[in-house]
Amino acid sequence: MEDIVGEGYEAKGNKYVIGVDYGTLSARAVLVSVGSGEVMAESIYAYPHGILRRLGETAAGVISEGEAPVGVRGDLPADFALQKIDDYEEALYDTIGAVVRKSGCRAEDVIGIGIDATSSTFLPLSENGEPLCRVEGFRTNPHAQLKLWKHHGAQEQADRITALANERKEKFMMRCGGRVNAEWMLPKLLEIAEKAPEVYEATDNFMEAGDYLVGLLTGEVTRCMCHAGYKLLWNEDDGYPSGEFLKALHPELASLHRKLKGKELRVGACAGKLTLEAAKRLGLKAGTAVAASLIDAHVAVPAVGIDGADSALMILGTSCCMLLCSEKLAYIKGISGCVKNAVLPGLYAYEAGQSAVGDLFDWFVRNCVPGSYEREASEKGISVHTLLSDRASGLAPGESGLVALDWWNGNRSCLADTKLSGMILGLTLRTKPEEIYRALLEAAAFGMKAVFEEFHKGGIAADKLYACGGIVGKNPFMMQLYADILGQTIETCAAEQGSAFGAAVYAAVAAGGQKGGYANVNEAARMMGKGGGRRFEPIPRNVEAYKSLYREYKILHDYFGAGGNEVMHRLR
Amino acid sequence: MEDIVGEGYEAKGNKYVIGVDYGTLSARAVLVSVGSGEVMAESIYAYPHGILRRLGETAAGVISEGEAPVGVRGDLPADFALQKIDDYEEALYDTIGAVVRKSGCRAEDVIGIGIDATSSTFLPLSENGEPLCRVEGFRTNPHAQLKLWKHHGAQEQADRITALANERKEKFMMRCGGRVNAEWMLPKLLEIAEKAPEVYEATDNFMEAGDYLVGLLTGEVTRCMCHAGYKLLWNEDDGYPSGEFLKALHPELASLHRKLKGKELRVGACAGKLTLEAAKRLGLKAGTAVAASLIDAHVAVPAVGIDGADSALMILGTSCCMLLCSEKLAYIKGISGCVKNAVLPGLYAYEAGQSAVGDLFDWFVRNCVPGSYEREASEKGISVHTLLSDRASGLAPGESGLVALDWWNGNRSCLADTKLSGMILGLTLRTKPEEIYRALLEAAAFGMKAVFEEFHKGGIAADKLYACGGIVGKNPFMMQLYADILGQTIETCAAEQGSAFGAAVYAAVAAGGQKGGYANVNEAARMMGKGGGRRFEPIPRNVEAYKSLYREYKILHDYFGAGGNEVMHRLR
Repeated sequence: MEDIVGEGYEAKGNKYVIGVDYGTLSARAVLVSVGSGEVMAESIYAYPHGILRRLGETAAGVISEGEAPVGVRGDLPADFALQKIDDYEEALYDTIGAVVRKSGCRAEDVIGIGIDATSSTFLPLSENGEPLCRVEGFRTNPHAQLKLWKHHGAQEQADRITALANERKEKFMMRCGGRVNAEWMLPKLLEIAEKAPEVYEATDNFMEAGDYLVGLLTGEVTRCMCHAGYKLLWNEDDGYPSGEFLKALHPELASLHRKLKGKELRVGACAGKLTLEAAKRLGLKAGTAVAASLIDAHVAVPAVGIDGADSALMILGTSCCMLLCSEKLAYIKGISGCVKNAVLPGLYAYEAGQSAVGDLFDWFVRNCVPGSYEREASEKGISVHTLLSDRASGLAPGESGLVALDWWNGNRSCLADTKLSGMILGLTLRTKPEEIYRALLEAAAFGMKAVFEEFHKGGIAADKLYACGGIVGKNPFMMQLYADILGQTIETCAAEQGSAFGAAVYAAVAAGGQKGGYANVNEAARMMGKGGGRRFEPIPRNVEAYKSLYREYKILHDYFGAGGNEVMHRLR
Repeated sequence: MEDIVGEGYEAKGNKYVIGVDYGTLSARAVLVSVGSGEVMAESIYAYPHGILRRLGETAAGVISEGEAPVGVRGDLPADFALQKIDDYEEALYDTIGAVVRKSGCRAEDVIGIGIDATSSTFLPLSENGEPLCRVEGFRTNPHAQLKLWKHHGAQEQADRITALANERKEKFMMRCGGRVNAEWMLPKLLEIAEKAPEVYEATDNFMEAGDYLVGLLTGEVTRCMCHAGYKLLWNEDDGYPSGEFLKALHPELASLHRKLKGKELRVGACAGKLTLEAAKRLGLKAGTAVAASLIDAHVAVPAVGIDGADSALMILGTSCCMLLCSEKLAYIKGISGCVKNAVLPGLYAYEAGQSAVGDLFDWFVRNCVPGSYEREASEKGISVHTLLSDRASGLAPGESGLVALDWWNGNRSCLADTKLSGMILGLTLRTKPEEIYRALLEAAAFGMKAVFEEFHKGGIAADKLYACGGIVGKNPFMMQLYADILGQTIETCAAEQGSAFGAAVYAAVAAGGQKGGYANVNEAARMMGKGGGRRFEPIPRNVEAYKSLYREYKILHDYFGAGGNEVMHRLR
């Protein structure tokens, strides 16, 4: 790298950027040194209202919500997941203010801010840019609220969009694996148009939470092509799905393009400058660059140091998101999306995922592990996960005779079918909990292998594998299984603030080289990115054993998932 | 009924019979009134040595064995299940002596003794009729010991017998469902001939434990056609498998017919009279009738009051054994056997079974139920089974979206394949333990339904259903599921001493009408049999719901069990 420090250029060494990551239940900010990538300060803000379980006006006319433990709902339907935008706004000021204070750095040395958020997590805005949920008459309307990515009220709409788009052979279907996911924005918009036409009518602009927050800082209405591409079927060549298609879907949607205001920006672009008002509130300088917002998963790619094509990143948490950049545009079955310029400039970024990974293991620990194991773990001062992993690590691949299909939360990869379900096979009277646990871990890794196989069919290879996310730090046994089953070395980055760090990397690009940031994402990734965590090398003997076990997985995968036996659908 | 009491006939009212049932870990005797069927006294004897985990000479040259908790083995291979014949002999004297004493009845009023035992549980005898395991040179030879039915060392031998018999189109295969089970006598004999030729050579007579014990009381060498028929492929028309077949199996087996001494007796036949020596030891009269021995399951048929064709008895315990008498000889896929005169005179008695029922539910409770459930059950003072049943009973059929295959211990019914394994399908992140528990209960009942369907194909119907065994008393919820899934009323008999009681019924027949017993089994069943426990009526709404769930079960049953996907075999 040539470190460009000259006339008109600021030295990177004493410049800083801030990244803010909006997760499902909390937001986290980091303040990072642009030159070294060192994290100088960190701050977390848990959303006080969590996921809402009811919406109700009190006698005084003020909205009141209950606390919402995950998985518990009150008056709202069980598949609804709504949040308060107030929590998101408060998180922005709270966390940025905190990292600036904690780091003790000077306001003028902070050159950029980046924001990432879950997606599609969006809200309807009124004509003056206010959240519609603050407008009289819409305060208790569930469809006027911030809808979280995991709101599942639009499954039926997603199915109809898929059917119509396939029937019409819509080109955009080539880029989303042939199926539209209920968690994306379009099905949720159709849900609003159908179930709450008054909300659809009153909305001037539907915005992703990330884009809305960027607007709050800059006063500019922009969209990032990362959100638009993956969650609203947009691409640089063709834009959004055509008005004709949208009208065929629902007459009201003919007007949708007008309700999606703001230019679509490439990642790393500067969405605008910090307004005076926002700067005051944050204790920063007005005019500080604010990067176009990003999806929480996608920001992790440069964060682990990936700076080009053909390196895959697996983000292993409650679910799994895999990102792989390529120079090639190909049709890959079951991907969640393929968007150019949405992760690294000039490359197509493919996203694929599995809908239950950590969630599945947690389900097992909560529901299927006997009291004696809980007591043993407690006596040893370790988690039940660790106890199970320790015991399972004593087994050889295939020794238990078990194989599982990992579809506890449907399949959102190769089969893109939310109505699939989990299966365990090979159970005997001698089967032990740790054997089932291991079979579930293996199934998750087999599911990942199936994803890579689809890419391979499309001529796209993952020459290098990276992993980050909660599981990386918590379960090294699982990481070894991934290496053995995928047959490749995995380089990990256990940094918990992976996404917030990634947002900071893009902030450095938005600030630009002249201000002490970087000229492009590739360079920023190389300089700031944090790969080089623990490496997991495949064990040849295990690799061989898993090849045959994977064949069994794949036969069952195709039988239950690709039309051999529709039993999983019928049982739902 | 005409109660024949006249000249030369003894009144039944004050006559008694004794039944002794040899189970897996204990023997139980009952003393029963011939006239009323009332149980006057009962006694249990747990085998002090249980199932052996090692065989070893001590320095003094005496055999010493360790205690053997089920499922734990010492020096012996894990699939071995050996016992001490001394325990069986001691049980005979101990329990009979005890019931005579406890009942206070006069020795001359006890008119018959019946014995049933697990099968094939057998031992090799030397030329003078002594157990070979007591002969110098054979004391520590595992193949010279009493081999329990659940000894699984001869699976490979069973497979070869099946293959050869099918290749040669041996007629006896029509009567055993087309497969030979490793728990039967012939595979175990082949195992001895191959692995311990010295034992085979030195054996003068291989005898079922039940027949051996009858001989101990009578001094007569007899066999019951119940054991011979179901466990050694014998039938009245053709006798044992031909010498030619046996020779083709193994040259040494050419001599097998000579090592199966003793006439095959019909059930209820008098095998002999109590010897003076045995009578003295038991406190009974010499000359008391001793019935031909029986299999522990089969004796339960008259015990519940079944006195003729087309009534099925399900014996629901750790496993399930179903018995159904018919006038018709038909080829039924996967039955364990079909033997004429082996349960009720003049009828073909079909046996079919499932290899894991209560065992499966126990496995679940031991391995898959979280500590919170264990604590709740404990606080409520109920078993975990009851807690799970209570919770599961709140669900509607099919509500959980789960379906399971009940093959945790292989399939010994329609598919007769011990290498099959269990499967659960339809799991989601919302699945609760009670839902899985219910799915396992349903799977066991579906397995039973599949058995009845095979009989139906062969033109044999079960017009009435009876059930007995441990589950009947312990799990009424399960009984209701059986009624709903089978779509028929089930009459139950929860009497724990079902088998011992059945042995007593046969004892009354062996004694004969002239001595105050009965002329035949049918009459004895009608007069002494204890049906009329609780009745479970099918609930029409559930019957309908289970019809469609069963269709799913059957598709999976055939796919995994009948060649669609051999994955369960490959995983073993």
